[in-house]
Amino acid sequence: MPRLESSPLGVTGTLFFTFADGPEKFTLMSGQNLGPITVAYETYGTLSPHHDNAILICHALTGDAHAAGISSEDGRVGWWEVLVGPGMPLDTDRYYIICANVLGGCKGTTGPSSINPATGKPYALEFPIITIEDMVRVQKKLLDYLGVERLLTVIGGSMGGMQALSWAVQYPDMVASAIPIATSPHLSAQGIAWDEIGRRAIMADMNWDNGNYYTPGHPRPEAGLAVARMVGHLTYLSEESMSNKFGRRLRNRDNYSYTFGVDFEVESYLQHQGEVFIKRFDANSYLYITRAMDYFSLQGDYPSLADAFAVTQGHFLFISFSSDWLYPPSQSELMVTALQQAGRGDVVEYFAALSPYGHDAFLLEAQQQGPVITRFLERVHREQF
Amino acid sequence: MPRLESSPLGVTGTLFFTFADGPEKFTLMSGQNLGPITVAYETYGTLSPHHDNAILICHALTGDAHAAGISSEDGRVGWWEVLVGPGMPLDTDRYYIICANVLGGCKGTTGPSSINPATGKPYALEFPIITIEDMVRVQKKLLDYLGVERLLTVIGGSMGGMQALSWAVQYPDMVASAIPIATSPHLSAQGIAWDEIGRRAIMADMNWDNGNYYTPGHPRPEAGLAVARMVGHLTYLSEESMSNKFGRRLRNRDNYSYTFGVDFEVESYLQHQGEVFIKRFDANSYLYITRAMDYFSLQGDYPSLADAFAVTQGHFLFISFSSDWLYPPSQSELMVTALQQAGRGDVVEYFAALSPYGHDAFLLEAQQQGPVITRFLERVHREQF
Repeated sequence: MPRLESSPLGVTGTLFFTFADGPEKFTLMSGQNLGPITVAYETYGTLSPHHDNAILICHALTGDAHAAGISSEDGRVGWWEVLVGPGMPLDTDRYYIICANVLGGCKGTTGPSSINPATGKPYALEFPIITIEDMVRVQKKLLDYLGVERLLTVIGGSMGGMQALSWAVQYPDMVASAIPIATSPHLSAQGIAWDEIGRRAIMADMNWDNGNYYTPGHPRPEAGLAVARMVGHLTYLSEESMSNKFGRRLRNRDNYSYTFGVDFEVESYLQHQGEVFIKRFDANSYLYITRAMDYFSLQGDYPSLADAFAVTQGHFLFISFSSDWLYPPSQSELMVTALQQAGRGDVVEYFAALSPYGHDAFLLEAQQQGPVITRFLERVHREQF
Repeated sequence: MPRLESSPLGVTGTLFFTFADGPEKFTLMSGQNLGPITVAYETYGTLSPHHDNAILICHALTGDAHAAGISSEDGRVGWWEVLVGPGMPLDTDRYYIICANVLGGCKGTTGPSSINPATGKPYALEFPIITIEDMVRVQKKLLDYLGVERLLTVIGGSMGGMQALSWAVQYPDMVASAIPIATSPHLSAQGIAWDEIGRRAIMADMNWDNGNYYTPGHPRPEAGLAVARMVGHLTYLSEESMSNKFGRRLRNRDNYSYTFGVDFEVESYLQHQGEVFIKRFDANSYLYITRAMDYFSLQGDYPSLADAFAVTQGHFLFISFSSDWLYPPSQSELMVTALQQAGRGDVVEYFAALSPYGHDAFLLEAQQQGPVITRFLERVHREQF
């Protein structure tokens, strides 16, 4: 029996859209073909007669289509419940909001755990490498299907912000505005290194078995995936918030155990993060999606980042968080500067929020982000439609 | 044939000292007994007739007794070659310098890979949990054996700095000065979390086999240890130095491979770090030594950190590095403040160095640390002997 939490939006459910299910496949950035492709998505609110109120939410590495409301499948509350709902900044009474699980994911959209029609078995590592640009092009197919010609905004944090940026460059005339939050035009060397460590942790697990762990009875690379998650999770938190939350507090004890067991609260917390995650995420999807993040470069083949931004047509609201050391404010500032260099400085707003919550702030700081987003959307709607 | 590098100090060799080899064992902080205990150590220079020139170097997590010179065993140059040698800040012409592999290590001092006399087999997880305080008490036995009654200084970076601090509190009258570099009076929640991730990565490797991988033919937990090293290594580097050194440069290619292979220079570098490390370090030692770091609290049973420092009798030179985010300058400043609160502000020097090299700066920044250390040692020698 699913646990039913409360949500002002009520019960929401996942829908599915499939394309490239004929002989014509979808060609990826790598040049490889893929099809059919199923997209799991949710929508909240109603598309207006003028088609001027559509918002696309893009999720981060381990997110899914269930951004808000109570899932009809498992009773879970959506991952961006703090921002999406009636009367909220992403107002489901005003806007038609779409959120889709990314290509390569494991929450309903085609990914490495999906059946490969050529073999009748899960793709595993036969799944082609995908990119952020590919994720966006799949979302474009979904919007075509839903009859959305232009987005009031495309919004997302972290990898979701990368997708929002890619939207603005790949489909300039469809993007009235973009809200890239706690994100970057490309990962730094350190960012790539964290991803690589996560992948190595998964691949070091013998149960990973070169990706072929889907057969019934085959153990899953849970230990490796848990380590990958622990590393990732730690990069999402700030030193300050961890010190405040855990410090050196011991868990249910007064003295050290002098063992390798759980002595410190922070150890217990980390292990819990790993244990919860392995139940909800597919290890191969973790490999593919982190690789897509490594490969993402908004500049791409343009001579400069400013040249990439020069092709965009919409407005931008960048949001960064002071204690986010994974996607530090300087990376948002790099993009603000590039837009100014591209002669588009007049379409940029930048909100550098003070927050102790590290990278995770994009999921938590509703009070700070909310009013800025509300005002930005009202202005864009007024000026662009 | 070992590769012989050049060193102003020339060839150095490891010596061994064994104690607690009778019925009387060495009692650890945990209350468990251990013995016999062998200590691998090196010495450079000569103890003066007045016994006023002894310096103890304490090494970090993965270091060893071979701080300087060309190893007679494998031709390697010492890990602190930039600071130790004739005419250098830790001047082997003037000082009698001792460096010992820590208790729990795998470079000659008794640790989990040593033979357990009770079973005739390696201890593995039968080895008792050890602490920084235990490491220091073993070093004390070595100094007694070497006839050193008082140290001109005890110096070390990172975990070596923890040992220097513990020396000053455990043996106040033996420590004329301490030079704790890039270190902390206790790990933060984040520091404990990184250690825990390293341990989980090792334990997730099936070849770890609950620590029992020493039997001939048994594979070693190399994949897990490599991941632990990659995580650790990344925390030793600054974002700035990684961006400068690697950025997003591809390795020997112009375009993405669209695979999980090595595309980026930083991936190649990280993997190399893992591969080199597994050849030189024991996975169980990694578990024990990181646990000792977690458990270290200079304050211990004292009511406050200032109360702990109040028992010390020597001078202090703290050194921190601006880009060190694992042991940030604020942790050194916490100790400077505690000494001031303890009424010992007059014995403290603090050098907050600007450096792009992150935590690793303590191994690299000879030009910055050198003159400060030279001057401090001369003053302490003048005032204290």
